Amino acid sequence: MTKHDPDLSLLFHALADATRRSILTRLAETPARVTDLAEPTGLRLPTVMRHLAVLEEAGLITTSKDGRIRTCAIVPEAMEPARTWMDEQRAIWEGRLDRLNAYVMTVMKERGE
Amino acid sequence: MTKHDPDLSLLFHALADATRRSILTRLAETPARVTDLAEPTGLRLPTVMRHLAVLEEAGLITTSKDGRIRTCAIVPEAMEPARTWMDEQRAIWEGRLDRLNAYVMTVMKERGE
Repeated sequence: MTKHDPDLSLLFHALADATRRSILTRLAETPARVTDLAEPTGLRLPTVMRHLAVLEEAGLITTSKDGRIRTCAIVPEAMEPARTWMDEQRAIWEGRLDRLNAYVMTVMKERGE
Repeated sequence: MTKHDPDLSLLFHALADATRRSILTRLAETPARVTDLAEPTGLRLPTVMRHLAVLEEAGLITTSKDGRIRTCAIVPEAMEPARTWMDEQRAIWEGRLDRLNAYVMTVMKERGE
């Protein structure tokens, strides 16, 4: 299931870059034009466009064009599968801790401690 | 801050692969030997070793060697920075929604609606 989830890989890959994360943080504040997003990065526009394409492919942003102006907006719910996956891992881990605790309690009881 | 956090990039990069995620899920259950981790993946041992190196570099697992047997264990708290970053994004986004709502309420009030 999770093992073969290509969307989750796309999602984590999109987040695995500091420039892309800073763009997302900016877009969480407000939608923005591509040129405005590029400015604080100090990167050339084609490089920023490639980062935006990765974010869009992962479903984290949408872009729309009005004449020559392209605007980007965040898709906040797109990050949820990543959060869900991490929650699942935590639940497995906590289940293991619970079983370990239960085991220790049983052993202590058997020993009359 | 977040923009220049190389650890966060390492972390998300490590999670951006289905094989590595499946290894983490397995290790959340219990520590395991490298050969046992390799078996269900159907991958060659050197390939699995490379995946394990990526997970270890990101701090998500630790490995230890006893004679010729290498065992891997998960570091469950290592995923927290990723979760914190996602929480921060959600907080920024929800702050924006709150401001939008407040603005709409103000406009409606001014219009006497």
